[in-house]
Amino acid sequence: MTAGKCVGILAGAGPLPAQVAAAVTAQGKKVFIIAFRDYADLSLIQSYPHQVIRLAAVGEILKTLRENQCQELVLIGPVSRPAWRDLRPDGEGARILARLGRAIFAGDDGLLGAILRVLGEEGFVVRGAHEYLNHATGRSGALGRFSPDEQAKQDILRGVDVLRAMAQLDIGQACVVQSGLVLAVEAMEGTDAMLGRCGKLMQAGSGGVLIKIPKKGQDLRADMPTIGPETVENAARNGLRGVVFQPGVTLITDLERCVALADRYNLFLYGLTTEDLKEK
Amino acid sequence: MTAGKCVGILAGAGPLPAQVAAAVTAQGKKVFIIAFRDYADLSLIQSYPHQVIRLAAVGEILKTLRENQCQELVLIGPVSRPAWRDLRPDGEGARILARLGRAIFAGDDGLLGAILRVLGEEGFVVRGAHEYLNHATGRSGALGRFSPDEQAKQDILRGVDVLRAMAQLDIGQACVVQSGLVLAVEAMEGTDAMLGRCGKLMQAGSGGVLIKIPKKGQDLRADMPTIGPETVENAARNGLRGVVFQPGVTLITDLERCVALADRYNLFLYGLTTEDLKEK
Repeated sequence: MTAGKCVGILAGAGPLPAQVAAAVTAQGKKVFIIAFRDYADLSLIQSYPHQVIRLAAVGEILKTLRENQCQELVLIGPVSRPAWRDLRPDGEGARILARLGRAIFAGDDGLLGAILRVLGEEGFVVRGAHEYLNHATGRSGALGRFSPDEQAKQDILRGVDVLRAMAQLDIGQACVVQSGLVLAVEAMEGTDAMLGRCGKLMQAGSGGVLIKIPKKGQDLRADMPTIGPETVENAARNGLRGVVFQPGVTLITDLERCVALADRYNLFLYGLTTEDLKEK
Repeated sequence: MTAGKCVGILAGAGPLPAQVAAAVTAQGKKVFIIAFRDYADLSLIQSYPHQVIRLAAVGEILKTLRENQCQELVLIGPVSRPAWRDLRPDGEGARILARLGRAIFAGDDGLLGAILRVLGEEGFVVRGAHEYLNHATGRSGALGRFSPDEQAKQDILRGVDVLRAMAQLDIGQACVVQSGLVLAVEAMEGTDAMLGRCGKLMQAGSGGVLIKIPKKGQDLRADMPTIGPETVENAARNGLRGVVFQPGVTLITDLERCVALADRYNLFLYGLTTEDLKEK
Protein backbone atom coordinates (compact mmCIF):
# COMPACT_ATOMS: atom_id res chain seq x y z
CA MET A 1 0.00 0.00 0.00
CA THR A 2 1.55 3.26 -1.11
CA ALA A 3 1.68 6.58 0.73
CA GLY A 4 -1.02 8.98 -0.37
CA LYS A 5 -3.52 6.14 -0.55
CA CYS A 6 -4.54 6.83 3.03
CA VAL A 7 -7.96 8.41 3.38
CA GLY A 8 -8.34 10.86 6.26
CA ILE A 9 -11.73 10.94 7.93
CA LEU A 10 -12.68 14.05 9.89
CA ALA A 11 -15.22 12.45 12.20
CA GLY A 12 -18.16 14.11 13.90
CA ALA A 13 -20.93 12.31 15.74
CA GLY A 14 -22.97 9.24 14.87
CA PRO A 15 -22.34 5.95 13.11
CA LEU A 16 -21.35 7.28 9.68
CA PRO A 17 -17.62 7.90 10.26
CA ALA A 18 -17.12 4.23 11.16
CA GLN A 19 -19.21 3.18 8.16
CA VAL A 20 -17.02 5.28 5.85
CA ALA A 21 -13.90 3.80 7.47
CA ALA A 22 -15.24 0.29 6.84
CA ALA A 23 -16.09 1.13 3.21
CA VAL A 24 -12.66 2.67 2.59
CA THR A 25 -10.94 -0.34 4.15
CA ALA A 26 -13.05 -2.70 2.04
CA GLN A 27 -11.64 -0.94 -1.05
CA GLY A 28 -8.13 -1.88 0.10
CA LYS A 29 -7.22 1.67 1.15
CA LYS A 30 -5.73 2.74 4.43
CA VAL A 31 -7.69 5.04 6.67
CA PHE A 32 -6.84 7.50 9.45
CA ILE A 33 -9.55 9.08 11.57
CA ILE A 34 -9.38 12.50 13.20
CA ALA A 35 -12.00 12.08 15.92
CA PHE A 36 -13.37 15.47 16.97
CA ARG A 37 -13.35 15.61 20.74
CA ASP A 38 -16.86 15.78 22.28
CA TYR A 39 -18.44 14.77 18.97
CA ALA A 40 -16.99 11.51 17.58
CA ASP A 41 -18.27 8.20 18.97
CA LEU A 42 -15.00 6.54 20.01
CA SER A 43 -16.62 3.20 20.72
CA LEU A 44 -17.38 2.84 17.01
CA ILE A 45 -14.07 3.98 15.57
CA GLN A 46 -11.55 2.62 18.06
CA SER A 47 -10.60 -0.35 15.85
CA TYR A 48 -9.27 2.06 13.18
CA PRO A 49 -6.10 4.16 13.42
CA HIS A 50 -7.28 7.43 14.92
CA GLN A 51 -6.44 10.43 17.03
CA VAL A 52 -8.81 12.51 19.17
CA ILE A 53 -8.31 16.23 18.52
CA ARG A 54 -10.20 19.38 19.45
CA LEU A 55 -12.21 20.84 16.57
CA ALA A 56 -10.33 24.13 16.71
CA ALA A 57 -6.83 22.68 16.92
CA VAL A 58 -6.54 23.14 13.19
CA GLY A 59 -2.75 23.15 13.19
CA GLU A 60 -2.63 19.83 14.99
CA ILE A 61 -5.27 18.36 12.68
CA LEU A 62 -3.42 19.34 9.49
CA LYS A 63 -0.11 18.12 10.90
CA THR A 64 -1.61 14.76 11.92
CA LEU A 65 -3.23 14.29 8.51
CA ARG A 66 0.09 15.01 6.77
CA GLU A 67 2.08 12.73 9.10
CA ASN A 68 -0.31 9.93 8.16
CA GLN A 69 -0.02 10.64 4.43
CA CYS A 70 -3.68 11.45 4.07
CA GLN A 71 -4.23 13.37 0.90
CA GLU A 72 -7.86 12.45 0.37
CA LEU A 73 -10.30 13.60 3.05
CA VAL A 74 -13.89 12.85 4.00
CA LEU A 75 -15.80 15.12 6.43
CA ILE A 76 -18.58 13.10 7.99
CA GLY A 77 -20.82 13.09 11.05
CA PRO A 78 -22.62 16.08 12.54
CA VAL A 79 -20.74 18.75 14.45
CA SER A 80 -23.01 21.41 15.87
CA ARG A 81 -22.06 24.83 14.55
CA PRO A 82 -19.63 25.84 17.27
CA ALA A 83 -19.90 28.94 19.38
CA TRP A 84 -16.85 30.73 18.11
CA ARG A 85 -15.97 32.24 21.44
CA ASP A 86 -15.56 28.71 22.83
CA LEU A 87 -13.32 27.46 20.04
CA ARG A 88 -9.89 28.51 21.40
CA PRO A 89 -8.16 27.88 18.04
CA ASP A 90 -4.46 26.99 18.01
CA GLY A 91 -2.02 29.21 16.04
CA GLU A 92 -2.78 27.60 12.69
CA GLY A 93 -6.46 27.56 13.61
CA ALA A 94 -6.44 31.31 14.20
CA ARG A 95 -4.78 31.90 10.83
CA ILE A 96 -7.37 29.71 9.10
CA LEU A 97 -10.27 31.33 10.92
CA ALA A 98 -8.93 34.64 9.63
CA ARG A 99 -8.92 33.20 6.09
CA LEU A 100 -12.51 32.02 6.55
CA GLY A 101 -13.23 35.57 7.56
CA ARG A 102 -16.75 36.81 7.04
CA ALA A 103 -17.81 33.46 5.56
CA ILE A 104 -18.18 32.31 9.16
CA PHE A 105 -21.26 34.48 9.35
CA ALA A 106 -22.47 34.11 5.81
CA GLY A 107 -24.92 31.26 6.22
CA ASP A 108 -24.20 27.57 6.22
CA ASP A 109 -23.20 27.25 2.59
CA GLY A 110 -20.83 30.19 2.86
CA LEU A 111 -19.03 28.72 5.85
CA LEU A 112 -18.79 25.15 4.60
CA GLY A 113 -17.73 26.29 1.16
CA ALA A 114 -14.96 28.33 2.74
CA ILE A 115 -13.75 25.38 4.80
CA LEU A 116 -13.59 23.21 1.66
CA ARG A 117 -11.71 25.98 -0.15
CA VAL A 118 -9.13 26.26 2.63
CA LEU A 119 -8.61 22.47 2.73
CA GLY A 120 -8.11 22.54 -1.05
CA GLU A 121 -5.57 25.34 -0.72
CA GLU A 122 -3.76 23.24 1.87
CA GLY A 123 -3.35 20.49 -0.75
CA PHE A 124 -6.07 18.07 0.32
CA VAL A 125 -8.69 16.52 -1.94
CA VAL A 126 -12.07 16.40 -0.22
CA ARG A 127 -14.51 13.66 -1.24
CA GLY A 128 -18.16 13.22 -0.33
CA ALA A 129 -19.03 10.39 2.04
CA HIS A 130 -21.62 9.19 -0.48
CA GLU A 131 -18.77 8.35 -2.87
CA TYR A 132 -17.85 5.60 -0.43
CA LEU A 133 -21.30 4.80 0.95
CA ASN A 134 -23.25 4.70 -2.29
CA HIS A 135 -25.13 1.62 -1.10
CA ALA A 136 -26.53 3.81 1.69
CA THR A 137 -28.12 6.60 -0.28
CA GLY A 138 -31.45 4.92 -0.92
CA ARG A 139 -33.44 4.61 -4.13
CA SER A 140 -36.59 6.08 -5.65
CA GLY A 141 -40.03 4.96 -4.54
CA ALA A 142 -41.39 3.36 -1.38
CA LEU A 143 -38.72 1.42 0.54
CA GLY A 144 -41.01 -0.36 2.98
CA ARG A 145 -44.55 -1.66 3.19
CA PHE A 146 -46.27 1.72 2.99
CA SER A 147 -46.58 4.14 0.08
CA PRO A 148 -47.75 7.77 -0.04
CA ASP A 149 -51.45 8.16 -0.94
CA GLU A 150 -52.76 10.97 -3.16
CA GLN A 151 -52.84 13.59 -0.37
CA ALA A 152 -49.35 12.61 0.75
CA LYS A 153 -48.09 12.91 -2.83
CA GLN A 154 -49.47 16.45 -2.98
CA ASP A 155 -47.82 17.24 0.35
CA ILE A 156 -44.53 15.90 -0.98
CA LEU A 157 -44.68 18.17 -4.04
CA ARG A 158 -45.58 21.14 -1.83
CA GLY A 159 -42.62 20.33 0.40
CA VAL A 160 -40.29 20.20 -2.60
CA ASP A 161 -41.60 23.62 -3.68
CA VAL A 162 -41.07 25.07 -0.22
CA LEU A 163 -37.52 23.72 0.04
CA ARG A 164 -36.69 25.07 -3.43
CA ALA A 165 -37.77 28.55 -2.36
CA MET A 166 -35.84 28.26 0.91
CA ALA A 167 -32.74 27.06 -0.90
CA GLN A 168 -32.55 30.36 -2.79
CA LEU A 169 -32.08 31.95 0.61
CA ASP A 170 -29.59 29.39 1.99
CA ILE A 171 -32.05 28.18 4.64
CA GLY A 172 -32.61 24.63 5.89
CA GLN A 173 -33.03 21.35 4.08
CA ALA A 174 -36.27 20.11 5.55
CA CYS A 175 -39.90 20.93 6.23
CA VAL A 176 -43.06 19.20 7.40
CA VAL A 177 -46.29 19.43 5.41
CA GLN A 178 -49.70 18.12 6.45
CA SER A 179 -52.66 18.23 4.06
CA GLY A 180 -51.25 21.24 2.26
CA LEU A 181 -50.36 23.11 5.44
CA VAL A 182 -46.68 23.80 6.09
CA LEU A 183 -46.37 22.97 9.79
CA ALA A 184 -42.66 23.64 10.25
CA VAL A 185 -39.63 24.82 8.36
CA GLU A 186 -36.10 23.96 9.43
CA ALA A 187 -33.56 26.76 9.77
CA MET A 188 -30.61 26.45 12.22
CA GLU A 189 -32.31 24.14 14.73
CA GLY A 190 -31.81 20.94 12.74
CA THR A 191 -34.27 18.29 11.62
CA ASP A 192 -34.70 16.58 14.99
CA ALA A 193 -35.64 19.79 16.80
CA MET A 194 -38.04 20.68 14.01
CA LEU A 195 -39.72 17.27 14.22
CA GLY A 196 -39.90 17.70 17.99
CA ARG A 197 -42.28 20.63 17.72
CA CYS A 198 -44.54 19.01 15.13
CA GLY A 199 -46.44 16.82 17.59
CA LYS A 200 -48.12 19.91 19.02
CA LEU A 201 -48.72 21.51 15.61
CA MET A 202 -50.26 18.47 13.95
CA GLN A 203 -53.87 18.92 12.77
CA ALA A 204 -56.60 16.31 12.70
CA GLY A 205 -56.72 13.95 9.74
CA SER A 206 -53.84 12.09 8.21
CA GLY A 207 -50.39 12.84 9.60
CA GLY A 208 -47.68 15.13 8.30
CA VAL A 209 -44.85 14.32 5.96
CA LEU A 210 -41.16 15.16 6.47
CA ILE A 211 -39.47 16.22 3.26
CA LYS A 212 -35.68 16.51 3.32
CA ILE A 213 -33.60 17.38 0.27
CA PRO A 214 -30.26 19.11 -0.22
CA LYS A 215 -30.22 22.65 -1.49
CA LYS A 216 -29.53 22.99 -5.18
CA GLY A 217 -25.79 23.54 -5.49
CA GLN A 218 -25.19 22.45 -1.89
CA ASP A 219 -21.71 20.98 -1.60
CA LEU A 220 -22.36 17.41 -0.51
CA ARG A 221 -18.72 16.99 0.48
CA ALA A 222 -19.31 19.22 3.47
CA ASP A 223 -22.95 18.86 4.33
CA MET A 224 -25.15 16.03 3.22
CA PRO A 225 -28.75 15.42 4.28
CA THR A 226 -28.83 12.42 6.59
CA ILE A 227 -31.64 10.33 7.95
CA GLY A 228 -31.45 7.39 10.30
CA PRO A 229 -33.49 5.21 12.65
CA GLU A 230 -33.81 8.08 15.13
CA THR A 231 -35.29 10.26 12.37
CA VAL A 232 -37.97 7.64 11.70
CA GLU A 233 -38.69 7.21 15.43
CA ASN A 234 -38.83 10.97 15.99
CA ALA A 235 -41.19 11.33 13.03
CA ALA A 236 -43.50 8.59 14.35
CA ARG A 237 -43.47 10.07 17.86
CA ASN A 238 -44.62 13.42 16.47
CA GLY A 239 -47.54 12.21 14.41
CA LEU A 240 -45.94 12.03 10.97
CA ARG A 241 -46.92 9.41 8.45
CA GLY A 242 -44.00 9.59 6.10
CA VAL A 243 -40.33 10.45 5.63
CA VAL A 244 -39.20 11.58 2.17
CA PHE A 245 -35.62 11.89 0.93
CA GLN A 246 -33.76 12.39 -2.32
CA PRO A 247 -31.94 9.19 -3.38
CA GLY A 248 -28.25 9.39 -4.23
CA VAL A 249 -27.67 12.57 -2.27
CA THR A 250 -28.95 11.53 1.17
CA LEU A 251 -27.05 9.36 3.61
CA ILE A 252 -29.25 6.81 5.30
CA THR A 253 -27.61 5.39 8.38
CA ASP A 254 -28.75 1.80 8.83
CA LEU A 255 -31.18 1.60 5.92
CA GLU A 256 -32.48 -1.81 6.96
CA ARG A 257 -33.42 -0.64 10.42
CA CYS A 258 -35.01 2.52 9.01
CA VAL A 259 -37.26 0.38 6.82
CA ALA A 260 -38.11 -1.96 9.70
CA LEU A 261 -39.03 0.97 11.96
CA ALA A 262 -41.07 2.68 9.24
CA ASP A 263 -42.99 -0.57 8.72
CA ARG A 264 -43.55 -0.98 12.44
CA TYR A 265 -44.87 2.60 12.86
CA ASN A 266 -47.00 2.56 9.68
CA LEU A 267 -44.84 5.24 8.06
CA PHE A 268 -43.82 5.40 4.45
CA LEU A 269 -40.14 5.88 3.69
CA TYR A 270 -40.05 7.31 0.20
CA GLY A 271 -37.25 8.25 -2.20
CA LEU A 272 -38.17 11.08 -4.56
CA THR A 273 -38.39 10.20 -8.25
CA THR A 274 -37.11 12.33 -11.14
CA GLU A 275 -40.76 13.09 -11.87
CA ASP A 276 -41.34 14.40 -8.29
CA LEU A 277 -38.30 16.66 -8.65
CA LYS A 278 -39.19 18.07 -12.06
CA GLU A 279 -39.56 21.88 -11.96
CA LYS A 280 -43.26 22.59 -12.44
CA MET B 1 -78.23 55.38 18.82
CA THR B 2 -79.74 53.42 15.93
CA ALA B 3 -79.79 49.70 15.38
CA GLY B 4 -77.05 48.51 13.03
CA LYS B 5 -74.59 50.88 14.65
CA CYS B 6 -73.57 48.13 17.05
CA VAL B 7 -70.14 46.67 16.35
CA GLY B 8 -69.74 42.98 17.11
CA ILE B 9 -66.35 41.89 18.40
CA LEU B 10 -65.38 38.23 18.04
CA ALA B 11 -62.87 38.09 20.86
CA GLY B 12 -59.91 35.74 21.17
CA ALA B 13 -57.14 36.03 23.75
CA GLY B 14 -55.12 39.00 24.96
CA PRO B 15 -55.76 42.69 25.57
CA LEU B 16 -56.74 43.73 22.04
CA PRO B 17 -60.48 42.88 22.12
CA ALA B 18 -60.99 45.23 25.08
CA GLN B 19 -58.90 47.89 23.35
CA VAL B 20 -61.07 47.66 20.24
CA ALA B 21 -64.20 47.82 22.42
CA ALA B 22 -62.88 50.99 24.07
CA ALA B 23 -62.03 52.56 20.70
CA VAL B 24 -65.46 51.71 19.25
CA THR B 25 -67.19 53.12 22.34
CA ALA B 26 -65.07 56.29 22.10
CA GLN B 27 -66.51 56.80 18.61
CA GLY B 28 -70.01 56.81 20.08
CA LYS B 29 -70.91 53.39 18.74
CA LYS B 30 -72.40 50.50 20.68
CA VAL B 31 -70.42 47.32 21.04
CA PHE B 32 -71.27 43.67 21.71
CA ILE B 33 -68.57 41.13 22.41
CA ILE B 34 -68.72 37.43 21.60
CA ALA B 35 -66.08 36.10 24.01
CA PHE B 36 -64.71 32.78 22.76
CA ARG B 37 -64.73 30.35 25.66
CA ASP B 38 -61.24 29.28 26.79
CA TYR B 39 -59.66 32.11 24.79
CA ALA B 40 -61.11 35.54 25.69
CA ASP B 41 -59.85 37.30 28.82
CA LEU B 42 -63.12 37.96 30.65
CA SER B 43 -61.52 40.18 33.27
CA LEU B 44 -60.76 42.73 30.56
CA ILE B 45 -64.06 42.71 28.71
CA GLN B 46 -66.61 42.26 31.51
CA SER B 47 -67.56 45.94 31.58
CA TYR B 48 -68.86 45.68 27.99
CA PRO B 49 -72.03 43.85 26.89
CA HIS B 50 -70.85 40.37 26.08
CA GLN B 51 -71.66 36.70 25.90
CA VAL B 52 -69.30 33.74 26.31
CA ILE B 53 -69.77 31.20 23.52
CA ARG B 54 -67.88 28.16 22.31
CA LEU B 55 -65.86 28.77 19.15
CA ALA B 56 -67.72 26.07 17.24
CA ALA B 57 -71.24 27.09 18.29
CA VAL B 58 -71.51 29.01 15.06
CA GLY B 59 -75.30 28.99 15.03
CA GLU B 60 -75.44 30.53 18.50
CA ILE B 61 -72.79 33.09 17.57
CA LEU B 62 -74.64 34.26 14.45
CA LYS B 63 -77.98 34.36 16.31
CA THR B 64 -76.48 36.39 19.17
CA LEU B 65 -74.85 38.85 16.77
CA ARG B 66 -78.17 39.34 14.95
CA GLU B 67 -80.18 39.71 18.18
CA ASN B 68 -77.82 42.49 19.16
CA GLN B 69 -78.08 44.23 15.79
CA CYS B 70 -74.41 43.82 15.03
CA GLN B 71 -73.84 44.25 11.35
CA GLU B 72 -70.21 45.32 11.49
CA LEU B 73 -67.75 42.78 12.91
CA VAL B 74 -64.18 42.80 14.13
CA LEU B 75 -62.26 39.52 14.65
CA ILE B 76 -59.49 40.16 17.15
CA GLY B 77 -57.24 38.31 19.58
CA PRO B 78 -55.44 35.04 18.92
CA VAL B 79 -57.32 31.77 18.78
CA SER B 80 -55.06 28.78 18.28
CA ARG B 81 -55.98 26.88 15.16
CA PRO B 82 -58.41 24.41 16.66
CA ALA B 83 -58.14 20.66 16.43
CA TRP B 84 -61.20 20.06 14.31
CA ARG B 85 -62.05 16.79 16.00
CA ASP B 86 -62.51 18.71 19.27
CA LEU B 87 -64.76 21.42 17.83
CA ARG B 88 -68.17 19.75 18.27
CA PRO B 89 -69.89 22.28 15.99
CA ASP B 90 -73.60 22.99 16.50
CA GLY B 91 -76.01 22.43 13.57
CA GLU B 92 -75.27 25.77 11.93
CA GLY B 93 -71.59 25.25 12.69
CA ALA B 94 -71.56 21.94 10.85
CA ARG B 95 -73.22 23.54 7.82
CA ILE B 96 -70.65 26.33 7.81
CA LEU B 97 -67.74 23.94 8.27
CA ALA B 98 -69.05 22.13 5.21
CA ARG B 99 -69.07 25.45 3.31
CA LEU B 100 -65.48 26.11 4.41
CA GLY B 101 -64.74 22.68 3.01
CA ARG B 102 -61.23 22.04 1.86
CA ALA B 103 -60.17 25.59 2.75
CA ILE B 104 -59.81 24.28 6.30
CA PHE B 105 -56.73 22.46 5.14
CA ALA B 106 -55.50 24.93 2.57
CA GLY B 107 -53.05 26.91 4.65
CA ASP B 108 -53.77 29.84 6.92
CA ASP B 109 -54.76 32.30 4.23
CA GLY B 110 -57.14 29.84 2.64
CA LEU B 111 -58.97 29.15 5.90
CA LEU B 112 -59.21 32.74 7.09
CA GLY B 113 -60.25 33.95 3.67
CA ALA B 114 -63.02 31.35 3.65
CA ILE B 115 -64.26 32.42 7.10
CA LEU B 116 -64.43 36.06 5.93
CA ARG B 117 -66.28 34.98 2.80
CA VAL B 118 -68.86 33.04 4.82
CA LEU B 119 -69.40 35.96 7.21
CA GLY B 120 -69.89 38.22 4.20
CA GLU B 121 -72.43 35.81 2.72
CA GLU B 122 -74.26 35.88 6.06
CA GLY B 123 -74.68 39.64 5.64
CA PHE B 124 -71.96 40.90 7.99
CA VAL B 125 -69.35 43.53 7.17
CA VAL B 126 -65.97 42.57 8.61
CA ARG B 127 -63.55 45.38 9.50
CA GLY B 128 -59.90 45.18 10.50
CA ALA B 129 -59.04 45.95 14.10
CA HIS B 130 -56.46 48.45 12.86
CA GLU B 131 -59.30 50.58 11.48
CA TYR B 132 -60.25 51.26 15.11
CA LEU B 133 -56.78 51.04 16.69
CA ASN B 134 -54.83 53.12 14.18
CA HIS B 135 -52.95 54.82 17.00
CA ALA B 136 -51.53 51.40 17.89
CA THR B 137 -49.91 50.42 14.63
CA GLY B 138 -46.56 52.14 15.18
CA ARG B 139 -44.54 54.35 12.87
CA SER B 140 -41.36 54.11 10.79
CA GLY B 141 -37.93 54.33 12.38
CA ALA B 142 -36.62 53.65 15.87
CA LEU B 143 -39.31 54.01 18.54
CA GLY B 144 -37.06 53.92 21.58
CA ARG B 145 -33.52 54.82 22.59
CA PHE B 146 -31.78 52.26 20.37
CA SER B 147 -31.42 52.12 16.58
CA PRO B 148 -30.22 49.33 14.29
CA ASP B 149 -26.51 49.56 13.37
CA GLU B 150 -25.16 48.70 9.92
CA GLN B 151 -25.10 44.92 10.52
CA ALA B 152 -28.61 45.01 11.96
CA LYS B 153 -29.82 46.98 8.94
CA GLN B 154 -28.44 44.27 6.67
CA ASP B 155 -30.12 41.60 8.80
CA ILE B 156 -33.40 43.48 8.53
CA LEU B 157 -33.20 43.56 4.73
CA ARG B 158 -32.31 39.86 4.66
CA GLY B 159 -35.30 39.13 6.88
CA VAL B 160 -37.60 41.09 4.57
CA ASP B 161 -36.26 39.04 1.62
CA VAL B 162 -36.83 35.77 3.47
CA LEU B 163 -40.38 36.69 4.45
CA ARG B 164 -41.18 37.75 0.89
CA ALA B 165 -40.08 34.34 -0.40
CA MET B 166 -42.05 32.57 2.35
CA ALA B 167 -45.15 34.64 1.62
CA GLN B 168 -45.31 33.19 -1.88
CA LEU B 169 -45.81 29.84 -0.17
CA ASP B 170 -48.31 31.03 2.46
CA ILE B 171 -45.87 30.34 5.32
CA GLY B 172 -45.32 32.40 8.48
CA GLN B 173 -44.92 36.09 9.07
CA ALA B 174 -41.69 36.18 11.02
CA CYS B 175 -38.07 35.10 11.08
CA VAL B 176 -34.93 35.75 13.11
CA VAL B 177 -31.67 36.78 11.43
CA GLN B 178 -28.28 37.17 13.09
CA SER B 179 -25.31 38.53 11.18
CA GLY B 180 -26.68 37.26 7.88
CA LEU B 181 -27.58 33.84 9.23
CA VAL B 182 -31.27 32.89 9.29
CA LEU B 183 -31.62 31.28 12.72
CA ALA B 184 -35.32 30.50 12.63
CA VAL B 185 -38.34 30.72 10.39
CA GLU B 186 -41.89 30.74 11.73
CA ALA B 187 -44.43 28.35 10.26
CA MET B 188 -47.39 27.10 12.35
CA GLU B 189 -45.73 27.35 15.76
CA GLY B 190 -46.22 31.11 16.15
CA THR B 191 -43.76 33.89 16.93
CA ASP B 192 -43.36 33.16 20.63
CA ALA B 193 -42.43 29.51 20.09
CA MET B 194 -40.00 30.53 17.37
CA LEU B 195 -38.33 33.09 19.66
CA GLY B 196 -38.18 30.44 22.36
CA ARG B 197 -35.77 28.28 20.37
CA CYS B 198 -33.51 31.15 19.34
CA GLY B 199 -31.65 31.36 22.64
CA LYS B 200 -29.97 28.03 21.89
CA LEU B 201 -29.34 28.86 18.24
CA MET B 202 -27.80 32.28 18.77
CA GLN B 203 -24.18 32.64 17.60
CA ALA B 204 -21.45 34.73 19.16
CA GLY B 205 -21.32 38.41 18.28
CA SER B 206 -24.19 40.85 18.20
CA GLY B 207 -27.64 39.40 18.81
CA GLY B 208 -30.33 38.40 16.36
CA VAL B 209 -33.15 40.48 14.98
CA LEU B 210 -36.83 39.51 14.83
CA ILE B 211 -38.50 40.64 11.62
CA LYS B 212 -42.29 40.37 11.46
CA ILE B 213 -44.35 41.55 8.52
CA PRO B 214 -47.68 40.49 7.03
CA LYS B 215 -47.69 38.46 3.86
CA LYS B 216 -48.38 40.46 0.71
CA GLY B 217 -52.11 40.22 0.13
CA GLN B 218 -52.74 38.88 3.64
CA ASP B 219 -56.24 39.85 4.76
CA LEU B 220 -55.62 42.02 7.80
CA ARG B 221 -59.26 41.73 8.82
CA ALA B 222 -58.68 38.14 9.83
CA ASP B 223 -55.03 37.90 10.73
CA MET B 224 -52.84 40.83 11.60
CA PRO B 225 -49.25 40.65 12.83
CA THR B 226 -49.21 41.61 16.49
CA ILE B 227 -46.42 42.42 18.87
CA GLY B 228 -46.64 43.30 22.53
CA PRO B 229 -44.63 43.58 25.74
CA GLU B 230 -44.30 39.78 25.94
CA THR B 231 -42.78 39.75 22.43
CA VAL B 232 -40.12 42.24 23.54
CA GLU B 233 -39.43 40.29 26.74
CA ASN B 234 -39.27 36.99 24.89
CA ALA B 235 -36.88 38.52 22.36
CA ALA B 236 -34.61 39.86 25.10
CA ARG B 237 -34.66 36.54 26.97
CA ASN B 238 -33.47 34.73 23.83
CA GLY B 239 -30.53 36.94 22.96
CA LEU B 240 -32.11 39.21 20.36
CA ARG B 241 -31.12 42.82 19.97
CA GLY B 242 -34.03 44.12 17.96
CA VAL B 243 -37.69 43.75 17.03
CA VAL B 244 -38.78 44.97 13.61
CA PHE B 245 -42.36 45.50 12.41
CA GLN B 246 -44.20 47.10 9.51
CA PRO B 247 -46.01 50.26 10.62
CA GLY B 248 -49.70 50.63 9.78
CA VAL B 249 -50.29 46.91 9.39
CA THR B 250 -49.06 45.62 12.76
CA LEU B 251 -50.97 45.85 16.00
CA ILE B 252 -48.81 46.83 18.92
CA THR B 253 -50.48 46.06 22.21
CA ASP B 254 -49.35 48.61 24.78
CA LEU B 255 -46.92 50.57 22.63
CA GLU B 256 -45.63 52.62 25.55
CA ARG B 257 -44.71 49.57 27.59
CA CYS B 258 -43.09 47.94 24.53
CA VAL B 259 -40.84 50.98 24.13
CA ALA B 260 -40.02 51.06 27.85
CA LEU B 261 -39.10 47.35 27.84
CA ALA B 262 -37.03 47.68 24.67
CA ASP B 263 -35.12 50.57 26.29
CA ARG B 264 -34.60 48.59 29.47
CA TYR B 265 -33.27 45.51 27.62
CA ASN B 266 -31.10 47.48 25.15
CA LEU B 267 -33.23 46.37 22.20
CA PHE B 268 -34.21 48.45 19.24
CA LEU B 269 -37.89 48.55 18.30
CA TYR B 270 -37.94 49.56 14.68
CA GLY B 271 -40.72 50.29 12.20
CA LEU B 272 -39.76 49.49 8.59
CA THR B 273 -39.51 52.45 6.21
CA THR B 274 -40.74 52.54 2.62
CA GLU B 275 -37.08 52.38 1.63
CA ASP B 276 -36.55 49.16 3.66
CA LEU B 277 -39.55 47.59 1.95
CA LYS B 278 -38.61 48.55 -1.59
CA GLU B 279 -38.21 45.49 -3.84
CA LYS B 280 -34.50 45.19 -4.63
